[in-house]
Amino acid sequence: MRTKAAVALEAGKPMEIMEVNLDGPKAGEVLIEIKATGICHTDEFTLSGADPEGIFPTILGHEGAGVVLEVGEGVTSLQPGDHVIPLYTPECRECEYCLNPKTNLCQSIRSTQGQGLMPDGTTRFSMLDGTPIYHYMGCSTFANHTVMPEIALAKVRKDAPFDKICYIGCGVTTGIGAVINTAKVEIGSRCVVFGLGGIGLNVIQGLRMAGADQIVGVDLNPAKEDMARYFGMTDYVNPEDVKGDMVAHLVELTGGGADYTFDATGNVDVMRTALEAAHKGWGESVIIGVAPAGAEISTRPFQLVTGRVWRGTAFGGAKGRTDVPKIVDWYMDGKIEIDPMITHVLNLEEINKGFDLMHAGESIRAVVVY
Amino acid sequence: MRTKAAVALEAGKPMEIMEVNLDGPKAGEVLIEIKATGICHTDEFTLSGADPEGIFPTILGHEGAGVVLEVGEGVTSLQPGDHVIPLYTPECRECEYCLNPKTNLCQSIRSTQGQGLMPDGTTRFSMLDGTPIYHYMGCSTFANHTVMPEIALAKVRKDAPFDKICYIGCGVTTGIGAVINTAKVEIGSRCVVFGLGGIGLNVIQGLRMAGADQIVGVDLNPAKEDMARYFGMTDYVNPEDVKGDMVAHLVELTGGGADYTFDATGNVDVMRTALEAAHKGWGESVIIGVAPAGAEISTRPFQLVTGRVWRGTAFGGAKGRTDVPKIVDWYMDGKIEIDPMITHVLNLEEINKGFDLMHAGESIRAVVVY
Repeated sequence: MRTKAAVALEAGKPMEIMEVNLDGPKAGEVLIEIKATGICHTDEFTLSGADPEGIFPTILGHEGAGVVLEVGEGVTSLQPGDHVIPLYTPECRECEYCLNPKTNLCQSIRSTQGQGLMPDGTTRFSMLDGTPIYHYMGCSTFANHTVMPEIALAKVRKDAPFDKICYIGCGVTTGIGAVINTAKVEIGSRCVVFGLGGIGLNVIQGLRMAGADQIVGVDLNPAKEDMARYFGMTDYVNPEDVKGDMVAHLVELTGGGADYTFDATGNVDVMRTALEAAHKGWGESVIIGVAPAGAEISTRPFQLVTGRVWRGTAFGGAKGRTDVPKIVDWYMDGKIEIDPMITHVLNLEEINKGFDLMHAGESIRAVVVY
Repeated sequence: MRTKAAVALEAGKPMEIMEVNLDGPKAGEVLIEIKATGICHTDEFTLSGADPEGIFPTILGHEGAGVVLEVGEGVTSLQPGDHVIPLYTPECRECEYCLNPKTNLCQSIRSTQGQGLMPDGTTRFSMLDGTPIYHYMGCSTFANHTVMPEIALAKVRKDAPFDKICYIGCGVTTGIGAVINTAKVEIGSRCVVFGLGGIGLNVIQGLRMAGADQIVGVDLNPAKEDMARYFGMTDYVNPEDVKGDMVAHLVELTGGGADYTFDATGNVDVMRTALEAAHKGWGESVIIGVAPAGAEISTRPFQLVTGRVWRGTAFGGAKGRTDVPKIVDWYMDGKIEIDPMITHVLNLEEINKGFDLMHAGESIRAVVVY
């Protein structure tokens, strides 16, 4: 079949909207009509050329929602008409990782996914001249239709709006999951969140759900304050307003250091501040942000010897097929909010504008609706 | 009273054995006759001048065992004749840290201890000319008698030999505690221990107690292999024999990376290797060693984002008054061994020789018996 997609032909250039070929689902695969997709910084990271693993031409996008149109041979858990959220971190429920409760990093299709391929080592997308187009994070939601492995699709309730729950495919789950799956924040905790963008706001609402007593938000852009307070931030810190040492300021503000800190900036210097602002003896710091290639985090080992713990999280530690449907329920039940974070709705032709809005810091989330 | 002590008059010089004045215990304090003391690398770290917080003149030593001779006003948990192990990490059971199960870093006397003083801000030791001599790590076990706060003494059974259980005052508890309190190693784990000295060997016997399936030991000195195997090491790796990347070698040897790794070297490059040799998804690395002043650990944040956890431990995460008596019981019951690690027994006059043996890598533990 043919479908319409935003194709990233090469790094550093705007995507081009075009018709592409899409082969049908092979064994274990599913054809999806994407109904909506968010635009995330990780797409930008790859499009810009900063991602050393970026492969072109490709169809980006990994934060979508859609409907199953057709299932390949052997697919048992999904059928046409099911509503799904694509998972860039699949859940096969059979590999060593899926069977370990400490991790969500299913490895069953890791190597082909990393090469932009379906599990059989080929692509389903191609240019009209036959040139293969690589898949992206196993999803490629910047196409109106895509093919994905069954194990990389979370089946969700049918009454949930695509243009909101697409955000659960990455940002919402990453932020909330970092709190509840990775840090396992306890009621009454004092916390600091660095970066009040699309991830940071979800960390904040995760902390509110978890019953944190203090939620400090740190961001250089004061325009982020109001929304962050709306989602539960109790204290706003603009680093430009802090005289002297940022760590000392945060330690004082949190009464000795935070029980949990979260980096949602991707800046390795901020990651260090986040670790060192954690409480002596028990404070844990969670890295969520993606750092530039080659960047390294550093600290004195004394920071760890005196009880701080340094962790990271990918997709919020969520096992996608199991956890994503629950988060959709939380949204539909009003336990979490998404709507105020969807600041811009675009059609596919306007997708490059969505990247411009992100660059300019004007959007929290821009969503493309097909 | 007067007592005999090895006094460190200044950094970088051998200690001098001399008579010193010792004032009696004030309120909340206890006079102890030290019967035996181990010589630890931390004493050497301070004596050498490398410790930026070193204060001179001082009486070093923090790994002792002895008998209560006299208790000060208000002391209720100890009486003359009790056998005790001095604790450089006290346990007041009242501060915010003692009441938190996540940490053992009692802070109740932290600031005076760090300044070489008893909790009232004075010293009990002085030169015969009246010059104050600073306490060290709140212990100063290189004196035949010392005064310590009640909260910094673990009461232990009377049938345990001083010249063995003194080692529980630091090395044994640090190594075993890193396994059971900090890492909380599960049965069947695969583990790597870097550094097969006095701490590393105790990590190994802790891992054996915890039921680890694989215990890889890494040390540049092949003379360490036999003793480490005796305590439970299953695989020995000499970095000089490894062609190519050390992390890759260890990941292969452990079938994908270790569930837990332990640095007992104090070398920040080794700490990085230890982290990166931990298993993707769930591997945890624990820093035990004390790094040189100003040295920093580094890694790519991707190592944490893909599920590795970086921790540290001090005194093996043990709450001393509670846990040290249990470890003494384990020794007396034959659950752990200490005797083979006590390679040299000296008298106080020979204490500088104990440091020489440590430099030369000839001793695991040299113990001074009074």
